[in-house]
Amino acid sequence: MSSFKTIEWKDNKVIMIDQTRLPNEEIYLELETYQEVADAIKRMVIRGAPAIGVAAALGIALGAINIKTDDRNQFISEVNKVTDVILATRPTAVNLFWAGKRMLRVLNAQEGSVKEMKMRLVEEANNILIEDIEICRNIGRVGAVLIPDNSTVLTHCNAGALATAGYGTALGVIRGANEAGKNIKVIATETRPFLQGARLTAWELDKDGISVSLITDSMVGHIMSKGMVDAVVVGADRIAGNGDVANKIGTYSISILAKSHGIPFYVAAPISTIDYDCANGSLIPIEERNINEVTHILGKRIAPDVNVYNPAFDITPNENVSSIITEKAVVKDPFLKGLSDLIK
Amino acid sequence: MSSFKTIEWKDNKVIMIDQTRLPNEEIYLELETYQEVADAIKRMVIRGAPAIGVAAALGIALGAINIKTDDRNQFISEVNKVTDVILATRPTAVNLFWAGKRMLRVLNAQEGSVKEMKMRLVEEANNILIEDIEICRNIGRVGAVLIPDNSTVLTHCNAGALATAGYGTALGVIRGANEAGKNIKVIATETRPFLQGARLTAWELDKDGISVSLITDSMVGHIMSKGMVDAVVVGADRIAGNGDVANKIGTYSISILAKSHGIPFYVAAPISTIDYDCANGSLIPIEERNINEVTHILGKRIAPDVNVYNPAFDITPNENVSSIITEKAVVKDPFLKGLSDLIK
Repeated sequence: MSSFKTIEWKDNKVIMIDQTRLPNEEIYLELETYQEVADAIKRMVIRGAPAIGVAAALGIALGAINIKTDDRNQFISEVNKVTDVILATRPTAVNLFWAGKRMLRVLNAQEGSVKEMKMRLVEEANNILIEDIEICRNIGRVGAVLIPDNSTVLTHCNAGALATAGYGTALGVIRGANEAGKNIKVIATETRPFLQGARLTAWELDKDGISVSLITDSMVGHIMSKGMVDAVVVGADRIAGNGDVANKIGTYSISILAKSHGIPFYVAAPISTIDYDCANGSLIPIEERNINEVTHILGKRIAPDVNVYNPAFDITPNENVSSIITEKAVVKDPFLKGLSDLIK
Repeated sequence: MSSFKTIEWKDNKVIMIDQTRLPNEEIYLELETYQEVADAIKRMVIRGAPAIGVAAALGIALGAINIKTDDRNQFISEVNKVTDVILATRPTAVNLFWAGKRMLRVLNAQEGSVKEMKMRLVEEANNILIEDIEICRNIGRVGAVLIPDNSTVLTHCNAGALATAGYGTALGVIRGANEAGKNIKVIATETRPFLQGARLTAWELDKDGISVSLITDSMVGHIMSKGMVDAVVVGADRIAGNGDVANKIGTYSISILAKSHGIPFYVAAPISTIDYDCANGSLIPIEERNINEVTHILGKRIAPDVNVYNPAFDITPNENVSSIITEKAVVKDPFLKGLSDLIK
């Protein structure tokens, strides 16, 4: 396990590490309202598709316990409103909507008093959190076999313990390989504009004693051409039914560079990331974020006031993906069949 | 022409815009010693292969006029020492060594007194500066024909007026196309770690009224996949005899992405950038710069204290280059013959 807690439920509050202040400060926020949780998701205090799902569930539970009514119908209506606010925070990660649906299903199925419904929602949110860690451990076990001993894995953004309730997806595979006794080194891309690689992946691997080297995004091709990368492992924010992958902006470029250098390109994600209602990647909405993320770094202006693009994600087509690593199995081409088989 | 002066000789001083302080401050430094010029090249106050060549020549002239002797032999010996210091500043850009050689050739050929030799060196340095602008204008004229009307050109780093004595190489092609009446837009990559794209290219194009949009390096593949790029034009720090190109780190990745999307990839550079003594790109020394450029931005730490790679350049193999645009002609495959023909 990682040596820190990304998010937890404690004394009817949601505690989370403030990822916008890493690596310089390790600060844990205590959130007391669902609005604070929604804001934290929006501001990327917490980010990473699985962690967003967990935060959403805990946020809905937090909203629910603070609703002041004993009327079942009114309670259900209020929880739905809370859920709407939470789900409107970010558009791309499907785990957010998956977690919201699961909480509402539990809400609607629960008999008894409002008090019992509140307890059940808190329980379910904590189940999602605990399951997420277990799922990541299984992703690690399943994926570890793909990573040869004494190899160097390049990863993009942060698909680590910080992007999940703990352990990580892409970094879960690396933790899994290390726990299986393999000697694995990591190259982390800094991942502009939000610098999740430099700020979060480098911090979390360094903290857990896993060898990590940092590069800028522009160095990927060069580093690959020098034979320094044996495999790429990234996470996913949403996987379409055909295996197209939405992930952090830059992932698509890395998939082309990996292909061009004959390096395997793996995507590690829980089954909850697969959007079976989505036929292919072109249907996944891509969030455009504030241009200040590009023109400013840590509050300082680095560019003049010109036109800026800031898509937060891109789509990697399934033909660039060697395998998708889930908690149940490694899925290969044909992805449509392989992904469907996971939920049979 | 650009609306600012990158570097000039004035009242026995070398004046240059401080590129480390752009875009927030437009400050012109007055350098009075050759050591200050060497330091400015090293600290990237001035950068870009042709501009480094011009700065080296002016720096040698500045060193020369301040040598206190009337003895020809002692003067020649002292100028050689000055030149050694200037040439030891940066290893990759060949224009530095080209300019140094040219200054020493003039020194050794000049008859007469030390005073006459000093005047001749100052004259030659200014010739190099004036020729550089003229060469860039010709690169612009030669290259403009390759850029279709109403197209968008992606460029990396800064190969603009700021990277030359004025007008630019890659941006010279864009200025040339615009002056030929074409409607050309530019997408500039921010170019981590040193942010020459965000700080310099965006600033210089915006200042000169040329449409520019800024992206992070990680967005190149995504932007290309959306059909938003019609051509790539970059500069070069050194071109091997076979057409392999050393340029800013990230260029190699972009060349692969361009190829994979069927987008032409042009390199614009003066003939002085071609190293005919260098058979292929693997022989070009790649400068490794201080890791603080990656771990810190504008003096603020963005990453924990982990291992970092910081190669300043990479090598784009000739098979990824559509054409090399020089002041004399557009050179295509076979590059070995085409580049040789330029100096026949």
